[in-house]
Parts: sequence; structure tokens; C-alpha cells
Amino acid sequence: MERSVRLSPLEKEQQLSYFETEVMNVLNWLATFSPDEEGGITRLLYTEGWLKTQQALQLKMDSCGLVTEFDNVGNLFGRLLGEDENAPSIITGSHIDTVIQGGKYDGAYGIAAGLLALEYLQRRYGKPKRTLEIVSLCEEEGSRFPMAYWGSGSIVGKRNFEQIVHLQDSQEVFFADAMQRCGFGEGIGRESRRDDIAAFIEVHIEQGAVLEQDGFSIGVVETIAGQRRMKFEVIGESNHAGTTPMPMRRDALEGVSMMILKLRQEALRIGAPLVATVGRLQVLPNVPNVVPGKVIFTVDARHADGQALDRFCQWVMKEFATLAAERQLEIEGTEWFREEPVPMNERLKQHMDDVCGQMGISSKRMISGAGHDAQMFEHICPTAMLFVPSRRGISHSPEEYTRPRELAVGVLVLTELLYRLGYEGEEL
Amino acid sequence: MERSVRLSPLEKEQQLSYFETEVMNVLNWLATFSPDEEGGITRLLYTEGWLKTQQALQLKMDSCGLVTEFDNVGNLFGRLLGEDENAPSIITGSHIDTVIQGGKYDGAYGIAAGLLALEYLQRRYGKPKRTLEIVSLCEEEGSRFPMAYWGSGSIVGKRNFEQIVHLQDSQEVFFADAMQRCGFGEGIGRESRRDDIAAFIEVHIEQGAVLEQDGFSIGVVETIAGQRRMKFEVIGESNHAGTTPMPMRRDALEGVSMMILKLRQEALRIGAPLVATVGRLQVLPNVPNVVPGKVIFTVDARHADGQALDRFCQWVMKEFATLAAERQLEIEGTEWFREEPVPMNERLKQHMDDVCGQMGISSKRMISGAGHDAQMFEHICPTAMLFVPSRRGISHSPEEYTRPRELAVGVLVLTELLYRLGYEGEEL
Repeated sequence: MERSVRLSPLEKEQQLSYFETEVMNVLNWLATFSPDEEGGITRLLYTEGWLKTQQALQLKMDSCGLVTEFDNVGNLFGRLLGEDENAPSIITGSHIDTVIQGGKYDGAYGIAAGLLALEYLQRRYGKPKRTLEIVSLCEEEGSRFPMAYWGSGSIVGKRNFEQIVHLQDSQEVFFADAMQRCGFGEGIGRESRRDDIAAFIEVHIEQGAVLEQDGFSIGVVETIAGQRRMKFEVIGESNHAGTTPMPMRRDALEGVSMMILKLRQEALRIGAPLVATVGRLQVLPNVPNVVPGKVIFTVDARHADGQALDRFCQWVMKEFATLAAERQLEIEGTEWFREEPVPMNERLKQHMDDVCGQMGISSKRMISGAGHDAQMFEHICPTAMLFVPSRRGISHSPEEYTRPRELAVGVLVLTELLYRLGYEGEEL
Repeated sequence: MERSVRLSPLEKEQQLSYFETEVMNVLNWLATFSPDEEGGITRLLYTEGWLKTQQALQLKMDSCGLVTEFDNVGNLFGRLLGEDENAPSIITGSHIDTVIQGGKYDGAYGIAAGLLALEYLQRRYGKPKRTLEIVSLCEEEGSRFPMAYWGSGSIVGKRNFEQIVHLQDSQEVFFADAMQRCGFGEGIGRESRRDDIAAFIEVHIEQGAVLEQDGFSIGVVETIAGQRRMKFEVIGESNHAGTTPMPMRRDALEGVSMMILKLRQEALRIGAPLVATVGRLQVLPNVPNVVPGKVIFTVDARHADGQALDRFCQWVMKEFATLAAERQLEIEGTEWFREEPVPMNERLKQHMDDVCGQMGISSKRMISGAGHDAQMFEHICPTAMLFVPSRRGISHSPEEYTRPRELAVGVLVLTELLYRLGYEGEEL
């Protein structure tokens, strides 16, 4: 409890008020680089706007006294060197790329928070015991090329240049060409793979409405949920809508409607943190006066427990097959994407709980239903994530919004955590 | 009963066997004019293939001794002049156009049947008491321009040149230009509007599977069903599929799935001849990992009783609104197409029942769920329709099929009916 003495209520308020102003300055400044015509941010990997953003961030880090460096895929690091320069670094940060027509918080907030925390810590406490780093990861969203987590994945060794050889964007530009035009690529600059990381801490907007609805300031991520994505094709018989009596129909859309309802019913019955979604659905021939002969749709299912998730997916396959058979529909289902749950580091979670508890900041442990760079880092080092609220849970949209004060609380918690780990030598 | 004496079992068999060969000859011959690359027939209004088909049909009618004439929209008539040339005509026929990638029976069969009937009657019985006509109507499907029943509608005064002034096809060709290139249009040739028609009789494939399943040779159409088409837009909230707990969702697709099931349930409960179909459905944003925020879909409802149809549509509007409200979804529904049921002429139906009964041909009264040229003619004259079976109810497809013997039975019934009306002076 002695640490809470360090910051008086007045000091805490002053610091929050400072972060509140500064985090908005950084976010608004970053947003000026890749605005799109619809009022959102579209900052795709290796585009001109992306490069300018990373270059501007490098200058900003330089001016904060950080030692900056790009690696060969375009991840940008800013180091606040510690007394022991050989000790592994504690890294914070997030990704600089966005989805098409995204908002200004997703990714960028984690970079802004890290930058402000390091700048503040250096100004107030000088050199840390061990090196602290901020990283602006080049890519996470997979919005330009069919490849996600390119930045963090390259650092942890889950991504490499072989994997992108054949990848093209929608304009048929090759991944490697786009990368080289920005000055990155194999053999150009420092290897991205690292084995000198002591911990990774990512700050991010929640992208859900749980914190907002439950009235918490901080979400301490327990686990990043595992995902399964399935694709189903249901075949009935396409018939004339006027001449086919109801009992004679084999209407693919009717069968799929029942599947959608049963899926939701079962997901509700099992309860959180399971979620299941039919997000994409296509009807064929999709004509008002023709009974649908075929429906193709996806199921996205997520859970913090991989086995529970598999059990649910097995239930889905079996239940859908039964529902199809009852209606004389054919069905084919395949799982085409699979990601296991990634629990965050328990000691770091405990540190975050403590920081929040001691500073009088309301927090809750929660599951991240979305994927994040943190899940890549957890493969090589203790990793933690903290969330701040997202208004109405909206993300990947120009309407994405978090109140400045909420953003400031996240920066404050991150700053305190980095102080404990980097200056006080708190055990990782 | 004396009439059944006219045709001995042997004669009936000979006549059927003759029609069986001839009707296939005519259908196969017509199919040679507008074959498409997918093995179907694509004969759109005022195309080169369409014009060649009508011109070839004119020659064929000429060679059968009929007096041929086009009207100014391209309907082709072949007259077998009667003793009383001033008496209104009895007309039979159907439309020569097809949908895109259609089959060779829809429309064409009614023309082939009429042609064979007139040719046979003339050859065997000579001049009728009153004029009999075969018509090859220029258009019914609405497949090229957003306009259906152009042929029959022009004859009965429900369609006119004013209505097509602004119409273009998908290649932006104006209706009037396409028409003139084929040698038709306002002021070119005989006015299409007629008021000298005593009766119209259309022979057509069923386009449903009722006759096949119930084992009848002929369907005597009781009524052409009325139609209502509605469009609904259901709005929920588009959210991240990973971060939005199930109970917090306002999933537009879940709501619409329930609507689709309730619609079918209620249509089944009310029973035939009501049919209701959700044929077109669009999900937004239609991305696997996003909870659907909006769904747009159509409802096509048909019934032989206009009031019952309206009651059903009112139920749909109310029930959908309730289902949406229960889920905090917004909904907007509009009726954008409305066609009243058209009962066929009772006396003609009775004549067809009698013909079938006396010739030992199994027939049943039935509702036509599809629209037909007959519904236009019924506005100006006693009208009747007879159906022959469609294999598996398939139509508007290259797989459309009716057995030659089944086609022949339809021609036989039509021939006998025209004999009674045109030669024996049976009352209309």
C-alpha cells in the first residue's frame, strides 16, 4: 500500500488532466495522416499515408529522447535506455494500421499511451533500471493483404518473408513490392525477430460495451479468446414462388433461419464468454419470386476455453446436420480458421489489479473476444493487456469513441505499471 | 355424351400419337432460333433471335393456310376464318419470349398447341362457324425491359406506348428504339388494341409439381392467384462478433430469421392456395466477424382470394413489427407490387371439365400461382387456361421438361374445346 502514497489525490488529478489533453493531441495528430473521404481513418500497411505516419512517429519519439529504430518489416521502436542495457526490455505499444474506414483509437491509442507514459517517466524519474520501449507495430488488421499480425508475428517468429511471397492486395500489388517501396524487406535493416523482450503490455480500446455497461474504467484481460470460423453451404430446391405449395418446398433459407436461431439459443444457454455469430450470408438465386435453392453462410465462434469451444463447434456441426436432414436439405460445413485461446500472464494481471486497486480505479478481469498483437507476444514473453471503455462498443468505424478522461486513466495505469516494472524492479 | 362417340379409342390414340410427334417438332424447331450458351433458350423481346422466331412462325402459319398479321407491337396472329367473318374471334396462344436462360416449353408450348389445333381442325373439318385465331404474343416475362405482359396488355388496353417512353434495358437501349429496329412501334402497322375477341384460351405448362404429384393430366385453372410483394428493412446494431456478449446484441439477422420461420409457419397453418416466400435477402455489412446491423428482404405472397391475401399481409406487417420490437430492432415494410386474383371464366372451365371427362382424361381444377397472359385477356373477354404437368415443377430453367405424351394430351383437349366452340357453336 505504500505506493499509493506516491501520488496524492491532487497529483493524480493533475496527471490525469495532463494525460487527457496530451493523449487527444497525439490521437488527433495521428489521425491527420490517413484521413479517408468518409470521415474515418484508412491507414493500410505500406501505403504512403502509413509510411508518413511511421516517419512522423519516429521524429516524435526522437524528440522525446527515445532511441528510435525500424526493423526490416517496418515496426518502429523507441527505447528509453535503462541502467542495465543488456537486460531484456519491457515493451509497450500497439499497431499503427487501421481497417478500411476505421476510427482513430483502435491501435493508435496503445501507441499514444506508451509514448506518453515513457515521455512522462523519463521527464519525472529519469533513466529506468531496465530498458523500456514503445513499439508502433506495422500491421495487425489484415486489411490490405490476406495476412494479419504481420508486425507482432514477425517479432515473435510466427510470420516470415516466405509466407508473403504470393500475397497480393485487391489491386494486385505484391506484398514484397509494397514493402520495398516503403524501404523495408528481407535484408533491409535490422531483423525483426527478437529474443530480448522481458514483457509486452498492450493498451487498447475494448471494442465491446462491457466496461461501459458495467461501469468500470479498466479491463484487465484474463485471456484472449480462441476462435473458430466455419462455412456452411445448405442446398434445397430452387422453385417458383407462385406455383410451389408450401409443403412441397425445400427452402434452404428456411432451414438456415432455424440454424441461426438455434445457434443463438445454444450460445445464450452456455453463456459468456462464448459468443457465436452468423455474419455473412448469401442466398441463391436471391430473386423475390424464387424459393431459395442455396444459402452459404459463416459461423464465427469464440471462447476463452479451447475445449469448450470445440465442444460447441461439434454441437453446431451435429445440430445443423440434424436440422438440414429434417427438412431434406443437404449441408456441408467446414472449419476454415482456428485460433486457440491465449491466457495473459498471471503475474502481470495481478500487478494491474494492484495498480488499479491502489489508485482507486475501478477495474474488472475480462475476456478479449477480439484478437490482438498481445496474443502473438505471449508466445515469447509474459504479456498483458488492458482495456479502456468503447462507447456503445463501436469499433472499426469512424464512430469509434472513448472519452478523453477514460483514455487518460488507461495511460495513468500503464505509466504506474511501467514505473513499478522498470524503475522499482518489481518482479515480472 | 354423344360427342365422345366422335372419337373412338383408336382415333384418340392416333390423334395423340400424331400430336406427340408434331408438338415436339414445333418446340424443337422454335428452340433452334434463340439458343444460349448454357443450353437454354434466351429469347428476349425485340432481339434478333426474337424477330427471326416471329418471322419463321409467320411463314409456318401461312403454310398452314392461316391469314397472318402482325400488330404494331409485334404480336403475331394467324386466323382460320370462319363462316361469319364479323363474329368476334376465339383466340388461343401464348407468349414467344423467354426469361434469360429459360426452357423451351414456357410460352412456346401454348403457341405450338394452338398452331397444331388449328391446323388439325382446318384439315379435318374445314371452315369453322366463327373465326379461330392463334396468337404468338410478343412479350410476357418482363426479362429485357422492366415491363411485363406487353403483348397481351397492349391487346386489352392495359399497356400503351406512353408507358414505355423512358424504359431502357440493362444495356441502356430504349424500348422504343429496340421495337422500331424490329419494324414495330406507334403508327407502324395495325393498332394492337382489340375489341373483337369472343374468348381467349391459353395452354401452358404448370410450372409447379401439383399435377405430377397428384397424377393428373390436365389442370383446369380456377383462378390466377393475386400477388403482393413487400420489402422489409430491419435495423439492429452492427457490432464486433468477438467483443459483444450475446445478450447485448441487436442482431438484425437473428430477428429476420424468426420472421422467416413465423411467415412459413403461418402460411402452412392457413394452407393452400396461400404461398409466401422470402426469396431475396441481403445482409449488411455481411462480414464473418461482424454482427449483422441491417437486413433487407422481400416477401412474395399469393392467394386466389384477394381479401384473404390482404388479411395475411396485414398479419405479416403486424407480426414482423412485434418480432422486431421484442428484439429492439427497427423495421420498415412497404408493399411495392400488388396484383388482384383473376378468376377464369366459369363456363369455359365447365367446357374444359366436360371435354376431359368425356374423353377420359384426368383433370383437376387448380390455382395458378404464376401470372399469365390469360389474366390480361380476362379483362375484356371470357378466358380460360389449361395446364399440363411440369417435371418436378421446374421452370424458367433449361431443365424445364414435360413428356411429349403429356404435351399431346393438352393439344388434344384444346383441339376438342376449339371444335366445340368454333364448329359446333357451343355457347361461350
